[in-house]
Amino acid sequence: MIFVALIHYPVLNRQGETITSAVTNMDLHDISRAARTYGAEAFYVVTPLAEQQELVRELVGHWTSGVGGTLNPDRKRAMELIRVCPDIQETVTEISLEFQCRPVIYATTARVLPDQLSWEKLRKKIEAPGSMDVLLLFGTASGLHSQVLDQADGVLEPIRGTGDYNHLSVRSAVSIGLDRLKRYFDPSI
Amino acid sequence: MIFVALIHYPVLNRQGETITSAVTNMDLHDISRAARTYGAEAFYVVTPLAEQQELVRELVGHWTSGVGGTLNPDRKRAMELIRVCPDIQETVTEISLEFQCRPVIYATTARVLPDQLSWEKLRKKIEAPGSMDVLLLFGTASGLHSQVLDQADGVLEPIRGTGDYNHLSVRSAVSIGLDRLKRYFDPSI
Repeated sequence: MIFVALIHYPVLNRQGETITSAVTNMDLHDISRAARTYGAEAFYVVTPLAEQQELVRELVGHWTSGVGGTLNPDRKRAMELIRVCPDIQETVTEISLEFQCRPVIYATTARVLPDQLSWEKLRKKIEAPGSMDVLLLFGTASGLHSQVLDQADGVLEPIRGTGDYNHLSVRSAVSIGLDRLKRYFDPSI
Repeated sequence: MIFVALIHYPVLNRQGETITSAVTNMDLHDISRAARTYGAEAFYVVTPLAEQQELVRELVGHWTSGVGGTLNPDRKRAMELIRVCPDIQETVTEISLEFQCRPVIYATTARVLPDQLSWEKLRKKIEAPGSMDVLLLFGTASGLHSQVLDQADGVLEPIRGTGDYNHLSVRSAVSIGLDRLKRYFDPSI
């Protein structure tokens, strides 16, 4: 099983200071749709701010049990994956309660660090028989604080394109990451 | 060379009717960042509406020559890729004038159709010696009108995840598509 978490604290701003970022509406839509496309079991929106948690619950409610869900059932199927959590520890606890598993935690970063795991290698681990469950952590703003990277079981390599530019939106990064890990391969090609 | 175009007309709404969609601010940010990451030469925002064209030019101006460019040079590098065009024909003309080439045009769709090209095969075509230049067309709203698919040189396969759900945002679809075509492969893996 695969789980996605979008972290709003502790993350960095462009000056490298620790902040709590605000939840972005578009993140909830785009990432839940990508999570559903690639078979993630749940998408955790992680913020310690009670008002922000409430905002997420209201928005998700509109699309899952409100008018939005009736008008747009495809969006409902995506938004149903969203859970709200105050921190990463609680996210792991909720996963163990709802899905009866203890996932291996991989953090993501745009920085090059020692001992990073490639997406290819993680794909192979996930596909192996008796494969492990994985929780992927993605940072908002200018990325995850180093303490999150230190506490994770592993850190994935930055998503590389063709040059030195590495400023994808987190919506793009989640979409590309899930495609690298879970996309359908046609064995005939 | 690779070029990306985001089409706002003719596209479909969820009822299958032909519409002109409104330009979405987040599309410009996310897709220009992905285009820069994967080495696209330019990102064409295609809309016939003069007011919408002006809106895009103003926004791009803010981030490239205005205050935004000074405060956030990374965003400037992305936004500099944006061009505004009224239609696909004019896009091809502008590419030929600015980049001295005539790209092969591939349209994208979430629908399964006959004779679609896989992303893997297009990657191989792009990587081949003396490789061709490619213009990728992505539709906003509920996707490109069939007349765009018919007029393109080819249509790419839908982006498949792990099941039947195929409702990615266009921001996610562009990001994943570019990663499939242009991402760095470590030959040692």
